[in-house]
Amino acid sequence: MRHYRLALLGFGNVGKALSKLLLNKQEELTNRFNLIFSVTGIATAKHGVAIDPMGLDLSRALVVDDLGSLTRQPTPRDSCDFIRRCGANVLFENTPVNYETGQPAIDHLRVALESGIHVITANKGPVVHGYQKLKKLAEVKGRKFYYESTVMDGAPIFSLFRESLPGANLLSIHGVLNSTTNLIFSLMEQGESFDESIKYCQKIGIAETDPSGDIDGYDAAIKLAVLTMVLMDFPLKLSEVKRTGIREIGSAEINQAQSLGKRWKLVCHAERKEDGVEAWVSPEMIEPDSPLYHVQGTSSVVQFETDVLGLLTIIESDPGPQTTAYGLFADFLNIVSNHTL
Amino acid sequence: MRHYRLALLGFGNVGKALSKLLLNKQEELTNRFNLIFSVTGIATAKHGVAIDPMGLDLSRALVVDDLGSLTRQPTPRDSCDFIRRCGANVLFENTPVNYETGQPAIDHLRVALESGIHVITANKGPVVHGYQKLKKLAEVKGRKFYYESTVMDGAPIFSLFRESLPGANLLSIHGVLNSTTNLIFSLMEQGESFDESIKYCQKIGIAETDPSGDIDGYDAAIKLAVLTMVLMDFPLKLSEVKRTGIREIGSAEINQAQSLGKRWKLVCHAERKEDGVEAWVSPEMIEPDSPLYHVQGTSSVVQFETDVLGLLTIIESDPGPQTTAYGLFADFLNIVSNHTL
Repeated sequence: MRHYRLALLGFGNVGKALSKLLLNKQEELTNRFNLIFSVTGIATAKHGVAIDPMGLDLSRALVVDDLGSLTRQPTPRDSCDFIRRCGANVLFENTPVNYETGQPAIDHLRVALESGIHVITANKGPVVHGYQKLKKLAEVKGRKFYYESTVMDGAPIFSLFRESLPGANLLSIHGVLNSTTNLIFSLMEQGESFDESIKYCQKIGIAETDPSGDIDGYDAAIKLAVLTMVLMDFPLKLSEVKRTGIREIGSAEINQAQSLGKRWKLVCHAERKEDGVEAWVSPEMIEPDSPLYHVQGTSSVVQFETDVLGLLTIIESDPGPQTTAYGLFADFLNIVSNHTL
Repeated sequence: MRHYRLALLGFGNVGKALSKLLLNKQEELTNRFNLIFSVTGIATAKHGVAIDPMGLDLSRALVVDDLGSLTRQPTPRDSCDFIRRCGANVLFENTPVNYETGQPAIDHLRVALESGIHVITANKGPVVHGYQKLKKLAEVKGRKFYYESTVMDGAPIFSLFRESLPGANLLSIHGVLNSTTNLIFSLMEQGESFDESIKYCQKIGIAETDPSGDIDGYDAAIKLAVLTMVLMDFPLKLSEVKRTGIREIGSAEINQAQSLGKRWKLVCHAERKEDGVEAWVSPEMIEPDSPLYHVQGTSSVVQFETDVLGLLTIIESDPGPQTTAYGLFADFLNIVSNHTL
């Protein structure tokens, strides 16, 4: 029986959903994967930090207001100090995305890898801004750097290419990757205004107080950049993704599309060209015979064109924090399957 | 540099497409996978048999009428004798499907595994009729038994669950898995008759002279049984799949569906119940908001409901022998990645 010690940096909706999934799957992990786990550290920005080398009571961590009440160690100086002292084999990094620099998540992952800790993140920032260096550091240290949940929540995208499409060369990517704009368009088609639709997304917790990350296409662009870098092995900078948001699509444009039997979608494209990869995000009117047309609400879709298959389309319906949590969990199991402690 | 010796039993459209793919990818295999291959045996029912322990000239094998002209060994007594004498590490079994018994393909795979040869097949027969025994034999012998191309051509389905969805429990499967009936419905929607549509499918080579395997739902049912057995780990017999074919769907039914804004599809279902799995295949009128509605012609679609993700939908568009060949090729690379010679 192998014993893995886990640490969680960030304990919001996703970190909590992961904890619940780990608790639900505890018996299966023992019986099917021959492993037990303990959570030796949880760190948050606003609800304290807990470290216990003997393992925290995860059920209690899910309900206490101040994690500090569970700790058996002095409070760490900062997140990097937490990572060095948490005594984990695997770090789940779930701090908020920083579109501009990827920090401080890049530092978190670097410090963890340098300390011999496998890293798993749902944070797109460190992948888009630190992929090459983190990948190399992980290789040098013989540890894994996985990030399945950065795109399409927990749907298997990176593991698909890593494990299931060997020898395939990716020629193009097309997809609807941002949930908030997709839900906004769905609501506007039902007669809501742009502003009302945004308010609804904020109310159900999928849009930020400042919704520009979604509306101006940053979230879609960063996901596309992550896909392009990892799956097309092309060092695309986020600033090289041409980006048009959805602010120009008002009720008149929605009605016009509907009268043509079409729908607006914020579409991501990446296409391999002779001298590299061209990537862009923009609102487009989509015909009803495209799978993109039918992906409504918070669902998402991606289409992969390779040199070996016809177009391969993957749709993830109705995601939530628990599906993002599954992506983190799947990364953990994939690390465990291929690694001895 | 590892050297793999391959044998091909069956050398029709798929076997030939695989050979072309191997030739096209030869340099990539060397550079990216550090391996070289030679084909030491090819056996056909009507175009002779060739064995050469030093490696056959695959380009010539693709153009000669009689493979016997290339052999450097006496003609084997039968297919099992061929397998024992071909000197291969990996056998690609691509003989025609036998819905009733899975033979002689089961014997082919058994003899190969007993001889220490990895086996890869696009033939559903041995999976549906021999899965448990062949899986066990492969484990005992430390060899692999892979069959990615049996369902949805080369689209990654089995490898997805094997590698990319760890710890996920499959609750239900829904899909359109038979190309011929799907194309027949598409043609009938364009005004062709049932008989004309069948003739067209026969002309382009996707339906047999006796089209009952497709039309009466055997092909869909056997694919569903394979998915259920492997992915739900449930020993479903082919005879336990309730099966209704498409003979009752004439032009009147097609028109009726069109007037309701719907489309007929031959749909496969498998659902986990308390006491096992219920599986059925039947023609259904599908609403336009279902991804199944939009999968036209020879394309196919499958939807997986698990305990960890929202509905996951996979669509493979416009398959052909070359996509089935990629499934075989991917199985080969997956075996190679996880095995030393």
